[in-house]
Amino acid sequence: MNIILFEQEEITGISLLLTGERARHIVRVLRAVPGDTVKVGIINGKIGQGTIVEQQVKQPYSVRLDVVFEQEPAPAPLIDIMLALPRPIMFRRILSQAAALGIGHLFVVNAKRVEKSFWSGSMIDPLVCRKYLVEGLEQAVDTMLPSLTFHKGFKPFIEEDLIRLDSRYDQMLVAHPASTRSLRSVYRPGNGKTLLAIGPEGGWVDYELERMTEAGFGIFSMGPRILKVETAVTALHSALSTLYQ
Amino acid sequence: MNIILFEQEEITGISLLLTGERARHIVRVLRAVPGDTVKVGIINGKIGQGTIVEQQVKQPYSVRLDVVFEQEPAPAPLIDIMLALPRPIMFRRILSQAAALGIGHLFVVNAKRVEKSFWSGSMIDPLVCRKYLVEGLEQAVDTMLPSLTFHKGFKPFIEEDLIRLDSRYDQMLVAHPASTRSLRSVYRPGNGKTLLAIGPEGGWVDYELERMTEAGFGIFSMGPRILKVETAVTALHSALSTLYQ
Repeated sequence: MNIILFEQEEITGISLLLTGERARHIVRVLRAVPGDTVKVGIINGKIGQGTIVEQQVKQPYSVRLDVVFEQEPAPAPLIDIMLALPRPIMFRRILSQAAALGIGHLFVVNAKRVEKSFWSGSMIDPLVCRKYLVEGLEQAVDTMLPSLTFHKGFKPFIEEDLIRLDSRYDQMLVAHPASTRSLRSVYRPGNGKTLLAIGPEGGWVDYELERMTEAGFGIFSMGPRILKVETAVTALHSALSTLYQ
Repeated sequence: MNIILFEQEEITGISLLLTGERARHIVRVLRAVPGDTVKVGIINGKIGQGTIVEQQVKQPYSVRLDVVFEQEPAPAPLIDIMLALPRPIMFRRILSQAAALGIGHLFVVNAKRVEKSFWSGSMIDPLVCRKYLVEGLEQAVDTMLPSLTFHKGFKPFIEEDLIRLDSRYDQMLVAHPASTRSLRSVYRPGNGKTLLAIGPEGGWVDYELERMTEAGFGIFSMGPRILKVETAVTALHSALSTLYQ
C-alpha cells in the first residue's frame, strides 16, 4: 500500500477511523506512530495526508487520523480493456495490475475458449473484484477506481452494447497472433480513448474475430511469442501507452 | 507448455524419451496419443516436431517421440535486463515473464533496498532459476535460454564488470520515478542492444543512480504510478520493444 484508500462515507469531519487490514498496515508495516503522516485518498476522489492522532497497536488494530486533501485525482485513463474472462487466480492478478497501470473501464466478456466453470466462481462478484482493483490503486497511488461490467453473451455485447459505446472510442484494437500488422501500424495517433480487446488462453476463434472486425476493431499482432494473458495485459497496456506519449 | 523443450543430450538419433513433468503434460494436458505430433525444441537450438511412438499413460508417465527439426531459433533478443534482486516469489515470476518476453542476459545485482536475506535463499541458485526461465520459453515457444549472472557487489558490477560489457550496448537506460524525461525522449532509435536497469521495491538510492549515470545510463520515468517490480519488468520491456519497432 503506497496510499491508504477509503470511502467518502468513512470520514466524519476531518476524522477517519481505520480498523482491520488498513490499520494493521499502518501499525505493523509502516510502523507509523501518533504524529506521523501517511498518504491517504478518497476512492474516486482527492489525495491528501492523514496525521495519526491515536492508535491501538495490538489486535484488534485501529488507527484514528486527521485528514486533509490538497491534490486532485489523476485524469481518467485513456485505455479501456475488453477481456475474455480468465481463470480466477489469473483474473485477480489482472484486476490489480490493470488498476495499477490505469484503465477506465474493464468489460469482462465470454468467448468460445473461456471455460464455462469460470462463470460460476466467486470472481464474477463485483465486490470481490473491487478488492483487487483497490489493491492496484493502493500500489499505484491512484484513487480513480476502474469501472467493471460482465457480459456473459459475446454476440449481444459486440452487436448491441458496443454499438451504444462505440462513440466513446477513437479506436478499438484487438490482439491476435495471426495478424501480420503491428500495434504501431494499426494505431492512429490521437488523444482519444482506445478500447483494447484481449482474448482467452488459446486466443479468439475466427467467429469472434469476424464479429469484432465488423464492429470496427483493428487487428494487430504482438509477434510470434505466446504470452500468458496476465503478461499480455501489462505488455499491451504499456505498448499502447508508449504510442500515446 | 506451448513447446516441449529438452537438452541436445537427451536425443539419441531421432529418438527422444521423456519422463516426469514433460511426459505428464503430453499425456494428461495435451491428451496426445501415439501418432500425434507435438511442437518440440532443443534448448538453445532448433524447433521441430515430435511424433509420439509410444507412451506410458499411468504413473510413472513416459513418452517416446521421433523428432525432426526444421526451424532455426528466433534471433537473439536486443534487450538485456539489470535487475535488483527481488523477493523470491516475485523473482520466480519475473524469470518466467522475462524469458517469455525475450531477453538476452539478466544481470541480477544487489542494491541498498534489497533485503539481505534474499541473497541466502534458493532463488540465487542458477539451476533453480533455469527452471523458471525454461517455463517462460515453453510459454512463448522459444528455445533461446537467457543467460543469467548474479552480482552481489553493486559498485564492482557498475565500475568493473559493466565497463567490460559497455561496448555490447547501444544504450543503457534506468527507470526512476523522479526523472522528468520519458522513455521515448531518452531512447535513441537504432538496432543495437539496450541494457535496461530495474530497481528494487522502493527504487534505487541516489548513490546508485549517480554511479549508473557516471557509467553512461540515461535516466527516465514511466510516470507517477508506482508499479510492482514484476509489472514494471513487463511494462518496460514492452515499451522498449514498441520503440524498437
